[in-house]
Amino acid sequence: MTEPEEAISLQGAVCPIPLGHNQKIVLGHGSGGKMSHDLISRLFMPAFDNPILRAGNDAGVSEHTSGFRLAISTDSHVVSPLFFPGGDIGKLAVCGTVNDLAMMGAVPTWLTAGFILEEGLELSILERVIQSMRLAAEEANVQIIAGDTKVVQRGKADGLYINTAGVGILQPEIAIGGEKAKPGDVVIISGYIGDHGIAVLSARGELGFEANIESDTAPLNHLVSRMIKGVSIQDGTSIHVLRDPTRGGLATSLNEIAQQSNVAILIDENQIPIRTEVAAACEMLGFDPLYVANEGKLIAIVRRDSADQILYEMRHTKYGDNARIIGEVRETPQTRVLMRTTIGTTRIVDILAGELLPRIC
Amino acid sequence: MTEPEEAISLQGAVCPIPLGHNQKIVLGHGSGGKMSHDLISRLFMPAFDNPILRAGNDAGVSEHTSGFRLAISTDSHVVSPLFFPGGDIGKLAVCGTVNDLAMMGAVPTWLTAGFILEEGLELSILERVIQSMRLAAEEANVQIIAGDTKVVQRGKADGLYINTAGVGILQPEIAIGGEKAKPGDVVIISGYIGDHGIAVLSARGELGFEANIESDTAPLNHLVSRMIKGVSIQDGTSIHVLRDPTRGGLATSLNEIAQQSNVAILIDENQIPIRTEVAAACEMLGFDPLYVANEGKLIAIVRRDSADQILYEMRHTKYGDNARIIGEVRETPQTRVLMRTTIGTTRIVDILAGELLPRIC
Repeated sequence: MTEPEEAISLQGAVCPIPLGHNQKIVLGHGSGGKMSHDLISRLFMPAFDNPILRAGNDAGVSEHTSGFRLAISTDSHVVSPLFFPGGDIGKLAVCGTVNDLAMMGAVPTWLTAGFILEEGLELSILERVIQSMRLAAEEANVQIIAGDTKVVQRGKADGLYINTAGVGILQPEIAIGGEKAKPGDVVIISGYIGDHGIAVLSARGELGFEANIESDTAPLNHLVSRMIKGVSIQDGTSIHVLRDPTRGGLATSLNEIAQQSNVAILIDENQIPIRTEVAAACEMLGFDPLYVANEGKLIAIVRRDSADQILYEMRHTKYGDNARIIGEVRETPQTRVLMRTTIGTTRIVDILAGELLPRIC
Repeated sequence: MTEPEEAISLQGAVCPIPLGHNQKIVLGHGSGGKMSHDLISRLFMPAFDNPILRAGNDAGVSEHTSGFRLAISTDSHVVSPLFFPGGDIGKLAVCGTVNDLAMMGAVPTWLTAGFILEEGLELSILERVIQSMRLAAEEANVQIIAGDTKVVQRGKADGLYINTAGVGILQPEIAIGGEKAKPGDVVIISGYIGDHGIAVLSARGELGFEANIESDTAPLNHLVSRMIKGVSIQDGTSIHVLRDPTRGGLATSLNEIAQQSNVAILIDENQIPIRTEVAAACEMLGFDPLYVANEGKLIAIVRRDSADQILYEMRHTKYGDNARIIGEVRETPQTRVLMRTTIGTTRIVDILAGELLPRIC
């Protein structure tokens, strides 16, 4: 758990950890937290800078002169092990990109799949992964329309890695983005947090005890679609932000939103849904569940007067039946996430520093 | 060089090599030749089957109900070494996807970039690669609008791998595809073949002699754009096929086209442009330059009455100044590529079998 003192000392610094940790890539650069942000802001952003990338959302939204708008996104998947309770690298690769598109309010439509295979990989493993991708694509109602396969020598990969990129269609009335949270908005989470991270850890045999936790890996586009349809068209703007708290967990995603929207977010620890088994595993391992990855959950920041309707819609879907309000957006302290704890105190919740669990997705 | 006897014995079989070579992935599955095709047709196609994927082109062409058409493509890049004369993995990653889109006649517009980084990678190397991507994207006039970074432990990658996916806009009058070659068409190549493969081999120190060969890695979209504009709109259909002969080389790409269009392609060995140094390197190594990878060349199959105009346009561009006609399309023998050799005989040119050069792109 991040101590308030430590967090407060990070005066306005988005990326307090120096980029050049011995001037080499370390696992923390892939955490999705501070070090990842730092790498992106110092190396990638200056080179590729453009307004779409700068928006810093889960998918880039591009508008063509002819008027149509697309959401475009990519994710490489390196999860270890390849199979875990509730999912595998294939399901993850499809759902990860589908969800990034859905978080912009887009309708995920087309996917690409790029495979990097290690020499010696059992074909039966590849076949299982592909079948799993097929099922996930069917559920999400997306087509995989382009692919690529590369093979590297033994010891130059770890079984297989999968990149997926996706294109989604964005209707004109949709305006969802990390920069749109407004003071007074309420913060909704679609269900239990931390399941994916703990399920992967369990599959690695690193828990040291028997746990019955399944990854939440799931395509969230139908949930999002129902949320959008549930509010009338003139209220199309009542959903301000959607984000799936993957690497870096709920805490990191909320921090990103607070920074993008220049607002404060206050959450209530009592309201955050965590399964008993996940809480117990985190307790034993010294993890804060707020930082543990999810692959089938979303944060929605919505106008207060639409919250009940949106919650109603969410609870009537497969992946939103445990949705609940966990907090609200405030004006100050800008860019900060605060949490009212179970013992009644308020602490700062910082972005993930360093690496919690490598290769979780 | 493929022997005619061997090729002829492959009766109508696209993929004569059994998929399950010990039921494990071998380097040949990444060659872009027979084994890659086999893996795709037996594992990927049955699972992801849809008309766009089945078309088997460099990029998938998708049409939305509202009428706009997009070309969408992906490529993962695992080239070794990361830097070679004339390019590096970054330039390759941008150009590879730009070219796949351009080969459908689309205007490449948006790219995504997914990085898999090995722990311990020097940041200065990553920085050079990113700068190289920036320059290539500027030249191609594409925006990188979404990215992703993953880090894997030491020994689980080889420095870095890059996936790019791309989206291009397709104008209504464009109808280019591997299935559109027609008897009577002429076959054009945009310049010297085999440069990329030999340059990478040279960078690996595997040539055993000093070679002054640079990779041809280049974005070909401006060349394609000029070719399309060069023929009047009502002749928009005079460019039937465009394809960049990358992995598997000219021979493999021509075979793919002959199969997709159900035609024969006859090429003239005397007309195929090969640099003396590349020919010499191939001679010493026992390689057939027809199978050596290119990363900045295109094959164009066009209506005979437009060929002069198209050649004129090509020769007035940076990457097409050595364009020339190398053959023609015939009705029979269907799905075959034949070559009139320098000594006046005619031999069958088959698709690449097995692996020529691993990790060339």
